[in-house]
Amino acid sequence: MDLMSFADYAGTGAFAISGTLSASEKKLDLFGATFIGFVTAVGGGTIRDLLLGNTPVTWIQGWHYFVIILSAIALTFIFYRYIIKLKQTLFLFDTIGIGVFTIIGMEKALIFGLTPPISLVMGLSSAVVGGVLRDTFCNDVPLIFHREIYATACIVGGTIYLALHYFEVETHFSQIATILSIILIRLLAIKFNLSLPKITNAQE
Amino acid sequence: MDLMSFADYAGTGAFAISGTLSASEKKLDLFGATFIGFVTAVGGGTIRDLLLGNTPVTWIQGWHYFVIILSAIALTFIFYRYIIKLKQTLFLFDTIGIGVFTIIGMEKALIFGLTPPISLVMGLSSAVVGGVLRDTFCNDVPLIFHREIYATACIVGGTIYLALHYFEVETHFSQIATILSIILIRLLAIKFNLSLPKITNAQE
Amino acid sequence: MDLMSFADYAGTGAFAISGTLSASEKKLDLFGATFIGFVTAVGGGTIRDLLLGNTPVTWIQGWHYFVIILSAIALTFIFYRYIIKLKQTLFLFDTIGIGVFTIIGMEKALIFGLTPPISLVMGLSSAVVGGVLRDTFCNDVPLIFHREIYATACIVGGTIYLALHYFEVETHFSQIATILSIILIRLLAIKFNLSLPKITNAQE
Repeated sequence: MDLMSFADYAGTGAFAISGTLSASEKKLDLFGATFIGFVTAVGGGTIRDLLLGNTPVTWIQGWHYFVIILSAIALTFIFYRYIIKLKQTLFLFDTIGIGVFTIIGMEKALIFGLTPPISLVMGLSSAVVGGVLRDTFCNDVPLIFHREIYATACIVGGTIYLALHYFEVETHFSQIATILSIILIRLLAIKFNLSLPKITNAQE
Repeated sequence: MDLMSFADYAGTGAFAISGTLSASEKKLDLFGATFIGFVTAVGGGTIRDLLLGNTPVTWIQGWHYFVIILSAIALTFIFYRYIIKLKQTLFLFDTIGIGVFTIIGMEKALIFGLTPPISLVMGLSSAVVGGVLRDTFCNDVPLIFHREIYATACIVGGTIYLALHYFEVETHFSQIATILSIILIRLLAIKFNLSLPKITNAQE
Repeated sequence: MDLMSFADYAGTGAFAISGTLSASEKKLDLFGATFIGFVTAVGGGTIRDLLLGNTPVTWIQGWHYFVIILSAIALTFIFYRYIIKLKQTLFLFDTIGIGVFTIIGMEKALIFGLTPPISLVMGLSSAVVGGVLRDTFCNDVPLIFHREIYATACIVGGTIYLALHYFEVETHFSQIATILSIILIRLLAIKFNLSLPKITNAQE
């Protein structure tokens, strides 16, 4: 298994766990938690595949995603007390996840012949839409719409990837540089408590 | 008209009525109620078709679903006082509906060459996602995420269908056995007030 | 650039602004506002394209929509104080937008060989689903489900278009007649404070 596949699976599992934890905070039952876990893990990639017309969508082909997601949800149910303490590990896997999802989304879009800016949008969709759907189905305003540097990290990382791609830098190097830059930006944003401006702020 | 088509149309009508009733509780207007009625009735099958790449999606081809859904919504508007008293009939049709939608979804997925577990997910999508979208657009946490055995009945019924399919049991018999088992499980769940565990329960 | 393209772009920009304004009321950040602006502008056409199987969806092909939407969102951020005063201009562009989106949706559906009533549904999806998604992601019950004559104007306008199409009236004339009728209905509805009935009203 290559590095990107490992990162893809680690990210998928981390997203499934994050969905299951959100669902448990909302006191959803086992089915609700499983639904939200799935939507969080595959929602972004699914929307990207649908927009591109890349069907049947990736996760319903083959076993890998299905088994990883169900296992992650089951582990969260069984080891709930321990998993909620693993915040830093989950944070790391989640950040690896958005990094690798950004790259996979952009690479698919470029294969479909889309322009670089639209490819960046597709990368971003892959990375963040799962979380948006998770919060929408849990009846919350999506977290990433009003807190934290999250999508921004993907946008910067994705732009770096496109630049390296343009200059024909070797793919593996580009991928690692992209993921590391996304992790770095997110860590810096948390350390320095950075957040994006709001319209209302800008007017005061 | 064969038995499956009848069950499909009865279920579609029951779903449209359930959506219209939800919308009326939320004091939506005629358009809002019609929108929610449609989404409830065709939402699950639409998501299934999109994931498979089976487009144009089923309900926009031909007249049947369109006429049935509009009629069901119109009847609900006109005979509202009577229809809300028909709870048991609606319950029966709704349960027939989730049964037949589970089967249709699985059969389509198997035709597309998907694995049995993923086919079960596609059957489940067909059956329950309409209701999830209904509640989401009405700005509620989806009912089936925290109350009642509903999706579980489809999962058990779908598993029975796959087992009978594996042993090459005659299709009509499998279909009837699946629908009856889903009805039975739902009735038993209500009679004995069964519900799925929640994470938080599991920890107490 | 022909008249329909101009109306399409004006409507897209107006929708993006409306989304950004909704997002700012909800105190979303720059990313949240951009996401909602995009979803409002392209959501309806995207759902129509997905239902038809017309992929990659229109807006991810080429630059036009992407640049218009990003510009509209940026202008809203920068000139917020002025733009919120332009209510009548925005209202006009928004109404031109739903008119032209209704027509584009119907024309695409007719090309795909769908029946006239379903084509009307596709036109309506193009026009109103963006606003429905905007409100859903902002965690509100969609505005058009309980206030204002909005979808109704599209339904009447779309029916006029289908009638003129049936009698083989020249296309440009049909398009202008449709858009004008939609504008007229919406203005009359606001002037006379018209709204659709609700089930609960009907029962009192």
